[in-house]
Amino acid sequence: MFSTVLIANRGEIALRVARTCRELGIRTVAVCSDSDRDSTVARFADESVRIGPSEARRSYLNPAAVVTAALQVGADAVHPGYGFLSEDPDFAEICEDAGLTFIGPAASLLARLGDKAEARNIATAAGLPVLPGSSKPLATLAQARSIAAEVGYPVIIKAVAGGGGRGMRVVRDPRDLAREYAQARAGAQTAFGDSRVYLERFLENARHIEVQILGDGRGNVIHLGERDCSVQRRRQKLVEETPAPGLPRELADRICAAAVRAAQAVGYAGVGTYEFLVDDEDGFHAMEVNCRIQVEHPVTEMVTGVDLVREQLHVAAGYGLTIRQQDVVPRGVAIECRVNAEDPRRGFLPTPGTIREFVSPAGPFVRVDTHGEPGMRVTPDYDPLLAKVVVWAPDRHQAIARADRALGEFHVEGPGVCTTRDFLREVLEHPVYRAAKHTTALIDEMDVR
Amino acid sequence: MFSTVLIANRGEIALRVARTCRELGIRTVAVCSDSDRDSTVARFADESVRIGPSEARRSYLNPAAVVTAALQVGADAVHPGYGFLSEDPDFAEICEDAGLTFIGPAASLLARLGDKAEARNIATAAGLPVLPGSSKPLATLAQARSIAAEVGYPVIIKAVAGGGGRGMRVVRDPRDLAREYAQARAGAQTAFGDSRVYLERFLENARHIEVQILGDGRGNVIHLGERDCSVQRRRQKLVEETPAPGLPRELADRICAAAVRAAQAVGYAGVGTYEFLVDDEDGFHAMEVNCRIQVEHPVTEMVTGVDLVREQLHVAAGYGLTIRQQDVVPRGVAIECRVNAEDPRRGFLPTPGTIREFVSPAGPFVRVDTHGEPGMRVTPDYDPLLAKVVVWAPDRHQAIARADRALGEFHVEGPGVCTTRDFLREVLEHPVYRAAKHTTALIDEMDVR
Repeated sequence: MFSTVLIANRGEIALRVARTCRELGIRTVAVCSDSDRDSTVARFADESVRIGPSEARRSYLNPAAVVTAALQVGADAVHPGYGFLSEDPDFAEICEDAGLTFIGPAASLLARLGDKAEARNIATAAGLPVLPGSSKPLATLAQARSIAAEVGYPVIIKAVAGGGGRGMRVVRDPRDLAREYAQARAGAQTAFGDSRVYLERFLENARHIEVQILGDGRGNVIHLGERDCSVQRRRQKLVEETPAPGLPRELADRICAAAVRAAQAVGYAGVGTYEFLVDDEDGFHAMEVNCRIQVEHPVTEMVTGVDLVREQLHVAAGYGLTIRQQDVVPRGVAIECRVNAEDPRRGFLPTPGTIREFVSPAGPFVRVDTHGEPGMRVTPDYDPLLAKVVVWAPDRHQAIARADRALGEFHVEGPGVCTTRDFLREVLEHPVYRAAKHTTALIDEMDVR
Repeated sequence: MFSTVLIANRGEIALRVARTCRELGIRTVAVCSDSDRDSTVARFADESVRIGPSEARRSYLNPAAVVTAALQVGADAVHPGYGFLSEDPDFAEICEDAGLTFIGPAASLLARLGDKAEARNIATAAGLPVLPGSSKPLATLAQARSIAAEVGYPVIIKAVAGGGGRGMRVVRDPRDLAREYAQARAGAQTAFGDSRVYLERFLENARHIEVQILGDGRGNVIHLGERDCSVQRRRQKLVEETPAPGLPRELADRICAAAVRAAQAVGYAGVGTYEFLVDDEDGFHAMEVNCRIQVEHPVTEMVTGVDLVREQLHVAAGYGLTIRQQDVVPRGVAIECRVNAEDPRRGFLPTPGTIREFVSPAGPFVRVDTHGEPGMRVTPDYDPLLAKVVVWAPDRHQAIARADRALGEFHVEGPGVCTTRDFLREVLEHPVYRAAKHTTALIDEMDVR
């Protein structure tokens, strides 16, 4: 096993990775920007290295700074967490060139699956159904117009270099295409440094279903069940759940099997997530692959009992998987609620500030992944995730009651800081959510006060 | 279901009970002594009622004060937690007389099983093996001498009204019997207001194995597996684990089946624990029955997924059990470490004081049941339990690593306050514990610095 792992991330996921490393007897090194110098993980880790100023582009997104830190502390591996450099093929390659194990798929696979237009083709080749759309980046507006007309409106324009739901634009009226196409390209350039976009048919009333897979890089791939992440606001997930409620088990099993086949086809190594949309006629359509640990991975851990970060470390260290498909026996229901430092009454505007009081929920079958603590500064430099409140119960009814109880215990106070806690409780109470009939349109249809 | 439950307890168990009540939509009322007026549970509950001064005898141990509070707030049931009045038949009877449901077995059963000499006879009648000893309270020193000679030294003298490991005296040499007999009687009078004692053969190298049972009061009884609680200091449990490590499964199953038969014989209602000693030849011997939720119940919850307090409430409300024996499918291993405010270097002397910093462990598969928080006063009035750090893992090796990691995160600071955290980590590292060869003698054999 590795002796020292550098954790190239911050916040709750850095702490979560560090915890598993410690249980495995691995020395942990945290990296931190200036504003994170006294963060929870910086104090938790065996060592902490400053890698740059608060601005993410010059710290957590700076491959050179991270690799330099890893070499300096004698790390033998780098865990990238999610976001930041976690799916950057260049970063993975720089790590490998420097003799550091990148804990994730190989750079070449990250490159292929990171190109979302190419990923569509890989999915098709592996026999996965995809929504009709462009099989290559759009070359011109005229081409966009012709493909959109062919697949039929509404369509969604996505960045080739995108992912994680960022920078997507839905076009419902052909007259808006030119404007949205231009804005999508500009947005993609700004967000990802790559203006290429593609388009596909947009499903209005779809469920977001994703499959957690785990591969050893030698062709062995297993799945750990599906997650429903349909509760989204502007394609950002807010509430995630496993197993997918209201989805026929037979359909869920077919989707899981399809994800395993697709991952086998590319010789997937480590943890990954195959994302699908399920339409109102139970058709399913591959969207994208996330080649890293997912924010919502704890729900899968709670029903399967599998520590996914432990599996990542085992695979990256060359030990293969510690479990077989038949060892994965999901039990009960798990729900995760993401509490953000945002103000739902002001369009979910981030609310930076200093947290004075921070009370985390606890009790039976509750897990809270958070880096929050009294005195923590919430800065506009990073994403506003404060805590993931995750619960388990034998059935969905009890799980919702438990999630509501746990959210009720969550308490954050500090000048200027708002949270989405009460909004999440409204979601949990929503009759459409309770009936498990929600689609990705749920939040838009809710009347946010 | 009940509409209002009064929780006749304090500390972590009061909070734990309140959480399940809230998930069931039950209004909760906390009671508090003067020193607990601003406790976590007093703030968590829907209402909080002062029942007396800090001294337990005049607050949490005062049946009249508790029942008056319950009637005053319109409660329809009382949850007694553990300790205090939880096994007091008079209290149960007063509750019933006042029209309040006592959440536990009927007063008559509490009386029968609470008389530990009588409980021995009940166990024998139900076919449970018991250690040789007196079948009635000892009438005279001469009788004690004769029975002790008959069963053979060492013997243990126990209070008839005792339980929970308190006030027991081991006699290894016949010459000490007179002194120990006198002191045991005096101690029993002070602790329980009842000087009657009995004796039985004492096992030097035994494992403490107990069985969690659950009955509906109509003859249906199931078990939720066994727990090993052999890590004890002066018969106070420090580390508990399920399933019992190093115990042949076939033997554990026989002990569980014996407990179920015994509980069926008395028509047990609610949760209860049958305690056994297992000798080094795999013989097992019934000790006592605890007619309430147990401190160490979370380990059972973590491997079975069953919320035991929820089951208590269901049974007390007349709904029977929500699960059958075949629904209880234990998974993995759970370990609980009790962190006390005590100084192991000074003979585990309690260390009262005010807690300034309180950091509770978290992360995957960790549960911490605690009422601790910054600013909390640890007073000498109550037992020194600060937190129960409970972990789950697929196997014992991982569970121990996780418990050690979690304990490492536990941090309490405040003038005068010590904790047993580091001592517990030493236990987890002990080769005898690691090899699962420990008996109740482990702590005495450790060199506590």
